[in-house]
Amino acid sequence: MAIKITGLGSYIPEVVTKNDNFQKHQFLNMDGSAIKSENGIIIEKFKAITGISERRYAPAGMQSSDMGTQAALKAIKDSGVDPETLDYIICAHNYGDVQKGSNFSDIVPSLASRIKHNLRIQNPKCVAYDILFGCPGWIEGVIQAQAYIKAGMAKKCLVIGTEMLSRVVDDHDRDSMIYSDGAGASIIEQDDSNTGILSFETATFTYDEAYFLFNGSSYNTEAEQQTKYIKMYGRKIYNFALTQVPQAMKTCLENSGCTIADVKKIFIHQANEKMDEAIVSRFYKLHDLEMPEHIMPMSINTLGNSSVATVPTVFDLVRQGALENHEINKGDVVIFASVGAGMNINAMVYRY
Amino acid sequence: MAIKITGLGSYIPEVVTKNDNFQKHQFLNMDGSAIKSENGIIIEKFKAITGISERRYAPAGMQSSDMGTQAALKAIKDSGVDPETLDYIICAHNYGDVQKGSNFSDIVPSLASRIKHNLRIQNPKCVAYDILFGCPGWIEGVIQAQAYIKAGMAKKCLVIGTEMLSRVVDDHDRDSMIYSDGAGASIIEQDDSNTGILSFETATFTYDEAYFLFNGSSYNTEAEQQTKYIKMYGRKIYNFALTQVPQAMKTCLENSGCTIADVKKIFIHQANEKMDEAIVSRFYKLHDLEMPEHIMPMSINTLGNSSVATVPTVFDLVRQGALENHEINKGDVVIFASVGAGMNINAMVYRY
Repeated sequence: MAIKITGLGSYIPEVVTKNDNFQKHQFLNMDGSAIKSENGIIIEKFKAITGISERRYAPAGMQSSDMGTQAALKAIKDSGVDPETLDYIICAHNYGDVQKGSNFSDIVPSLASRIKHNLRIQNPKCVAYDILFGCPGWIEGVIQAQAYIKAGMAKKCLVIGTEMLSRVVDDHDRDSMIYSDGAGASIIEQDDSNTGILSFETATFTYDEAYFLFNGSSYNTEAEQQTKYIKMYGRKIYNFALTQVPQAMKTCLENSGCTIADVKKIFIHQANEKMDEAIVSRFYKLHDLEMPEHIMPMSINTLGNSSVATVPTVFDLVRQGALENHEINKGDVVIFASVGAGMNINAMVYRY
Repeated sequence: MAIKITGLGSYIPEVVTKNDNFQKHQFLNMDGSAIKSENGIIIEKFKAITGISERRYAPAGMQSSDMGTQAALKAIKDSGVDPETLDYIICAHNYGDVQKGSNFSDIVPSLASRIKHNLRIQNPKCVAYDILFGCPGWIEGVIQAQAYIKAGMAKKCLVIGTEMLSRVVDDHDRDSMIYSDGAGASIIEQDDSNTGILSFETATFTYDEAYFLFNGSSYNTEAEQQTKYIKMYGRKIYNFALTQVPQAMKTCLENSGCTIADVKKIFIHQANEKMDEAIVSRFYKLHDLEMPEHIMPMSINTLGNSSVATVPTVFDLVRQGALENHEINKGDVVIFASVGAGMNINAMVYRY
């Protein structure tokens, strides 16, 4: 028995926001003091580390659940599944629907319910719920879907990741340049092939790490301090990810029965290009190897960090042949990996 | 193999808020017009329908995740489980942590991560995530926990429901009197007894029903309309629940292999006493029976509607012998049932 992704779809919002759009921002330090560099320098440094030159934002009238609906429609079409036969709709996100100009996370009803409503699915036995699991939410949703299939509780699941970080950023925080909007969706089904999920690994680190990513006030101390924005301790996250993610990937690969030589692609959450390179390099170093060329498809340069949407989106782009030097072929072993708020980490070894 | 609740705990906040506390509220209709009754009359009518005479609110400094932690500590102690051996912490809620005086739903990191942090659990293999599933969230979390156990992914899970509705109510809305705060928690494990979960049933209705419960602006049209509060179409929910919940309970009972005569208690979500009586009466009517006396333990009179916390709390109260005319004995067959935002319904037949 194999449990596999039988359909995939992603939604990349239209609004291109280039780094130049941040030229007039007043960037501040955490304590509210001015950063003693010109914005041109700040933006150049930012680009050198993160690899981001532009990112996508959703248009004003759109909500996170609307993006999720668009991605879901593509995944449903791609798989050919009859939506009325879906047993679960699992939606991963971290901020719910946030209207432009507000920072209220609207999560009642759940985004999964909104998306099911938008898809006009009538079958009440299609159970719709949301998970909150940081950026690794989409991978975790896939792991949950396979649990229901294994437990005999489901045959077909729709797993969506959708996030609109553009509406929860502090304009005075340099990190605001990292975040973007997007959605990815997948249909998970059982079949008789020898493809699909080979192993997975999940971990939650909270003892010291719980608040590495959190909601905090604007760095502008004169701004209204009740309003909260996405905030992070970047350096701590970098060190944490570099220590924990390669090890989780290694354990997952060992459990899959595959070897490092089998791995054709690594679809990793993209929050920072330098960090991703360091993680994957260390993963190979744990196997006494150099990181191979073209092992890690990157979308961050033009798409930024779209949270739960990133991994399914970059997978979808490679599948479509839309990323230079990257292709995926039937039978290829790939690794999905993510790290984010919680702090959560997961990895999945998958035969395409 | 049985999957059962091996530990239970609930947290009932200290602040008692009696109906009299609403005497000076300015209650308005949905369109902002004044309600042409004195508050004394409004409150009397409210009490006659819902059964609520008082409700509990959390103290100002407390958060939803703090209440969840308190309930979790009790459940862990009750089960005797070593918290470091937990495979999952699943936290159900619908508004996250909301600070007093704000209406910002803080869900980064997830409440499960916050609670794991508060419990000082070190084991990173204890996966912590939140589910959003309306009031049926705690029951659904138990269903998810049993899926992981069945799939061989877990042995011990902590499932929490925690909600602080007092901070998301519109003071101008009569429905604000319904809502309260609280938390319930449970440890789910496998054992060799013939007790535990016998069957379960879940449904999500979104085609027409998705927005029966939603976030909306204050009925006071002069108030700031960006701020959102919990809102509902009470009449629609009443009719929906009365149609769907008894049927879900009946299907669940049929799948359990038990008969209606086996059922000793029904632990139902408490949003409205009259509605609960109508639901359970109809459930018995579907079996051509009258509703028996003392079949449905009620906590709503003094605890109000605490969302995901209600079902585990009323179960805990009966188990402790804290509700008059109610006891539960080893081997008793009971039904858990809930309905809420989504719109979601679930039921579980359980041998104690």
